Amino acid sequence: DPKKIVFAGVGKTDEEITLGLEKGILLFNVESEEELANIDRIAGKLGKKAPVALRVNPDVDPQTHTYISTGKKETKFGVDLIRAKRIVQSAMSLRNTHLKAIHVHIGSQITKVEPYVETMQRIAAFLPELEKIGAKIEMLDIGGGFGIWYKDKLAKPAKEIAASILPALQRMNVRILLEPGRFVVGNAGILVTRVLYVKESGDKKFVICDAGMNDLIRPTLYSAYHRIWPVKTDPGVSGEAPDEEAWSGAAAVTDIVGPICESGDFFAKERKMPPLKRGDLVAVFSAGAYGYAMASNYNSHPRPCEVMVAGKKAEVVTARETMDDLLRNEKIVTF
Amino acid sequence: DPKKIVFAGVGKTDEEITLGLEKGILLFNVESEEELANIDRIAGKLGKKAPVALRVNPDVDPQTHTYISTGKKETKFGVDLIRAKRIVQSAMSLRNTHLKAIHVHIGSQITKVEPYVETMQRIAAFLPELEKIGAKIEMLDIGGGFGIWYKDKLAKPAKEIAASILPALQRMNVRILLEPGRFVVGNAGILVTRVLYVKESGDKKFVICDAGMNDLIRPTLYSAYHRIWPVKTDPGVSGEAPDEEAWSGAAAVTDIVGPICESGDFFAKERKMPPLKRGDLVAVFSAGAYGYAMASNYNSHPRPCEVMVAGKKAEVVTARETMDDLLRNEKIVTF
Repeated sequence: DPKKIVFAGVGKTDEEITLGLEKGILLFNVESEEELANIDRIAGKLGKKAPVALRVNPDVDPQTHTYISTGKKETKFGVDLIRAKRIVQSAMSLRNTHLKAIHVHIGSQITKVEPYVETMQRIAAFLPELEKIGAKIEMLDIGGGFGIWYKDKLAKPAKEIAASILPALQRMNVRILLEPGRFVVGNAGILVTRVLYVKESGDKKFVICDAGMNDLIRPTLYSAYHRIWPVKTDPGVSGEAPDEEAWSGAAAVTDIVGPICESGDFFAKERKMPPLKRGDLVAVFSAGAYGYAMASNYNSHPRPCEVMVAGKKAEVVTARETMDDLLRNEKIVTF
Repeated sequence: DPKKIVFAGVGKTDEEITLGLEKGILLFNVESEEELANIDRIAGKLGKKAPVALRVNPDVDPQTHTYISTGKKETKFGVDLIRAKRIVQSAMSLRNTHLKAIHVHIGSQITKVEPYVETMQRIAAFLPELEKIGAKIEMLDIGGGFGIWYKDKLAKPAKEIAASILPALQRMNVRILLEPGRFVVGNAGILVTRVLYVKESGDKKFVICDAGMNDLIRPTLYSAYHRIWPVKTDPGVSGEAPDEEAWSGAAAVTDIVGPICESGDFFAKERKMPPLKRGDLVAVFSAGAYGYAMASNYNSHPRPCEVMVAGKKAEVVTARETMDDLLRNEKIVTF
């Protein structure tokens, strides 16, 4: 349903904006004055009124990795509150734009409630200023970034986050939108890979898998920790698989790496793991978000299939790529 | 021609090995004892003799980025020289394998000759040891990694690299193979992107382009510097475009960023650039290697087209991806 779609992003193209207007999406989350003018211009050409949110940057530190921190004023996201007020004012005179919402999203994988509380307090203080200049803000998109469990189980449950920001939200007379992407799918997905070779060189031990940084780039890009565990261990484990600290069976310290030709291609370094051998299946946990979505064909590796599991049923929802897929768009040209 | 193909990589699958054997490639560059045994097994099943090189790890520091450093003993690549001698010895008794070459590749984007000299000296001392145990080494794959020009023009010309390693190579009675990938195509390619919006927030100025980290991940993954310059400047420039230091025209310090929803999506930070405005075309230099090859569909962005230019002729050699391409392998499943 297009009416439930919010289009966020700092670099919306004319083609994308046109498509969104034609389909009648809920909101364009605007990131700059120039983008606002552009959306108004395109809406005018189409004889439409564009529903718009302004993304503000509250200058709050989400205390997460720099690459996924978006709420500090030195990032490209949103506009500072002083500029925001001016932009809302000028938006009121635009013919083809209806500015009806404020958007704020301070970053990703946030494991504390304080940055959210601080943000909502700033917004609660900001909205009355907009009301004073005559703006009618109907909706507040509070973004997402709610952390999940990777190594330590630090992330807060939804109830606790909600309780912490409710006092500020209750002071605002707005409909609340939110974007809990990773929070919904991150822990729900695992990457299953097969051990191709076990190798020793120098003083090191390597488990070489058939999946690599082309399939899951988070360890190398964000220095991210992913729990990794054999699908079967000896002795067997019932219930939740243990991690390297809880495991008391046989173990060796190994690097878990992929087949790609660079040293950045690793899932874990110096990880204590149960013995692994060629053919074993290994699960890389919490790969449901920023896994397949960031996958590439680096080293001409086709992307894996995606399998949806519901109880005892399992279905392929994204087919495995083939070499034909990789070559489909290539053309042989003779000069 | 398959007879010119060398297959390198730590994680070769059975399917890939089978294909290589059936097509009759020149060499499999073997990375571990277990891989050697596996290739021998598959060759036996096919009634073939597998032509093999053993990749050795000379434990030389290539003095480059950790992620693309492969010649130190703590990386997953190659086997140390002591193990290598033992593996060569045992390979001589394998029925379906012909170990005829040694492979060494110490890393990428190497801008000094010394690591190459040191490596070749070690190999020159190592080959006679193999001869003593009766191994006939016909070829030496000296790898690649020859640096190109990114920011500073530090990289050495081919002649200088060749001259530095020639004394060591001349002591070996082998055919030389080499892998100058980035050296050939890196500086030959540019990424052309269009400015979507120019934005100010806080104290910062951002130029938002329609290409992003999904198209060229090097800046965010390796903290790589890429020269960036407008396709047209005022005053115009003839000959080689200047860089931020040589340019004396009007300029502003800006972040050059993409449309992707994370702060890691940037091409340059705090770069002195001539004034840029919506619609301008910008060239990101030295994007011919590890650009398109590592591109992804992050944020559902289709990959760009690739255009080959020869003199005044230009032809699309890889078609622009469409949304249909992105959805082709997806399936709607009802449980």
